[in-house]
Amino acid sequence: RPSLLFLGLVAAVCLGLNLLFLTAYLLCLCCCKRDEEPDTKRPHACCVTWMAVTAGLICCTAVGIGFYGNSETNDGVYQLLYALDNANHTLTGIDALVAGSTQRLQGGLEQHLGRLSEVLAPRADYLQTLKFLQQLAAGVVLQLSGLPAWHGVSAQLTALAARAAYVEYYRWLAYLLFFILVLTVCLLACLGLAKRSRCLLTVMLCCGLLTLVLSWASMALDTAAAVGTSDFCMAPDKFIMNQTESEISAEVAHYYLYCEQSLSNPFQQALTVFQRSLTTMQIQTQGLIQFALPLFPTAEKDLLGVQQLLNTSETSLHQLTAMLDCRGLHKDYLDALIGICYDGVEGLLYLVLFSLLVAASFSTIICATPRTPPHFAFDPFNPQARRIAAHNPAR
Amino acid sequence: RPSLLFLGLVAAVCLGLNLLFLTAYLLCLCCCKRDEEPDTKRPHACCVTWMAVTAGLICCTAVGIGFYGNSETNDGVYQLLYALDNANHTLTGIDALVAGSTQRLQGGLEQHLGRLSEVLAPRADYLQTLKFLQQLAAGVVLQLSGLPAWHGVSAQLTALAARAAYVEYYRWLAYLLFFILVLTVCLLACLGLAKRSRCLLTVMLCCGLLTLVLSWASMALDTAAAVGTSDFCMAPDKFIMNQTESEISAEVAHYYLYCEQSLSNPFQQALTVFQRSLTTMQIQTQGLIQFALPLFPTAEKDLLGVQQLLNTSETSLHQLTAMLDCRGLHKDYLDALIGICYDGVEGLLYLVLFSLLVAASFSTIICATPRTPPHFAFDPFNPQARRIAAHNPAR
Repeated sequence: RPSLLFLGLVAAVCLGLNLLFLTAYLLCLCCCKRDEEPDTKRPHACCVTWMAVTAGLICCTAVGIGFYGNSETNDGVYQLLYALDNANHTLTGIDALVAGSTQRLQGGLEQHLGRLSEVLAPRADYLQTLKFLQQLAAGVVLQLSGLPAWHGVSAQLTALAARAAYVEYYRWLAYLLFFILVLTVCLLACLGLAKRSRCLLTVMLCCGLLTLVLSWASMALDTAAAVGTSDFCMAPDKFIMNQTESEISAEVAHYYLYCEQSLSNPFQQALTVFQRSLTTMQIQTQGLIQFALPLFPTAEKDLLGVQQLLNTSETSLHQLTAMLDCRGLHKDYLDALIGICYDGVEGLLYLVLFSLLVAASFSTIICATPRTPPHFAFDPFNPQARRIAAHNPAR
Repeated sequence: RPSLLFLGLVAAVCLGLNLLFLTAYLLCLCCCKRDEEPDTKRPHACCVTWMAVTAGLICCTAVGIGFYGNSETNDGVYQLLYALDNANHTLTGIDALVAGSTQRLQGGLEQHLGRLSEVLAPRADYLQTLKFLQQLAAGVVLQLSGLPAWHGVSAQLTALAARAAYVEYYRWLAYLLFFILVLTVCLLACLGLAKRSRCLLTVMLCCGLLTLVLSWASMALDTAAAVGTSDFCMAPDKFIMNQTESEISAEVAHYYLYCEQSLSNPFQQALTVFQRSLTTMQIQTQGLIQFALPLFPTAEKDLLGVQQLLNTSETSLHQLTAMLDCRGLHKDYLDALIGICYDGVEGLLYLVLFSLLVAASFSTIICATPRTPPHFAFDPFNPQARRIAAHNPAR
């Protein structure tokens, strides 16, 4: 943060020096103008046109570069938003799967087992099996409750994405308006130079000064943003681990941030317990269907219900395994980093270049404006001027 | 394909009409020129300058648009390549995991079990357990061999990515060179008009005609590519299912292309058998460690080896579950589609616009060139011309 303030200060000093130089130049010009011979103005005039044409060309090039940079930054930020949205989708999916499985194993299974224990009450060994099933389900629920809850991280990501989208939209729009302003002022300044309209030129001088200030401000903001983003991009993992410290454990954050084959999955134990319990429960249920069903036909509906529930839980478990695996979230993380650290920073650097070029061309235009001679010797599109030029050499 | 040929034909007809019009115009101009009064040329001259300036501006705008379109198409193709590479990585990862697990359960387990059956030979019940373990492992290997082998698809994707990267690199480079050619010819044509050099203008006329032909050819190619890509993007799923028919089953392709919650995972059975067998084997091994180890201490190394192997297999199973899940590959598919169908087609449309603008501006330049009067009345940067202009009104 202090380094960003320092950059802002440097830009402010640059703007100040630029304005000081321009003021000194304009004052100097005003003082010296009265002493000049009218004949010495001819070479100046040619020089002024060249300066105006060059400034116009630089201005157009700058707007082209700025347009490219603006769209590049926009692309980068949208890639970030897309990755955030995707990660959010995965996180809420995990929470939903965990909640669904817990609810199924607590509520749904409880009901079936309650009814079954009434039906199978005469046989103590079947009641034992039902109790075992209940214990296994309780064990799975306990393991699932040990998985991290992602809603906090998910809410953080949603807030971050919403803020980034908001800021980016207005940043993009502001630059588009700035491009239009620069082009308009540049065009009108050239027109003012060509038409030798003092009034137009004065207005353009003020607009040019405003644009100059805006372009220096834009350069300061862009440089600060580029440096800040680069700082983040140098060690994003540490920053993210600090930020998520309160929400998720360091081990889990480490697993998702690095996602190496050698790192063990921190959820492996929970998943293994879940799978083993499911397998055991399925075997036990199958045993009950095979042996108890012929004796107690009324238990059929509930036994098949338990089997169905266990199969659904197995599908959920496979989806949960896939979602908890680091590959998906790690890819989103890499996509977001590429978006912000490559496209984003590249676009910002182009915008810095744009600001510099605009500052240069507007300084040139402001310098050129007051030197415009009252009779503009060689305006190709003004027959009157041509006629004046035609009469001058004969003098 | 016939529609693409038709588009090429349309572009060729457009080029023909354009050239015909230009030839007729030039011939007409040559014939009429001799009858003209020298004095009537003055208004033409002004008109010619305006045309040249406008053509130059259009040319610069066109190159800006073309540059943006070229970089946009390049972005799209690189996103496609990135997604293909990622999908390829997943597919080879699946193949490697399946091969690793198979090798582990066949070779590794076999060795341990062979040594164990020698050590535990005195007890028939332990030998029974070892046989059971072997049967379970064989069942898992059978299920794994039923999973689709991806190396064919992976090879297809690699070939596609390599071809796309090759074509895209030369397309991008060719456009960059074309932009430079257009800018150079445009600049030299303007210079030729300003300097009234007949020789330079003739060379520029030839270069202009060449550029005109190239720009129409580029328009034909880009339109064809854009229409072809849009055709593909209208129904990519059917095209891909047709293409991969010989490599993977329709059910698997359908699972990855749509990836809906309602679709059942076609690999669920294999994964479930794998997991259940692993769990059973782990329980049996634990039993052996608990009861057989005190009697046969020499079996310790192999029993622990089997346990270790089963744990490793479980980790592989979790990774395999995550990789076979449709989310990862479906996301790559969507990324590739977005790259090619949004950025790619958008860039191609910008390139079509570029070609049209270049054709328009070069037609203008070619029309303007022969009308350049021998004495160019108002060249602002040529003092001689000014002097001539200055003498003319006095005549």
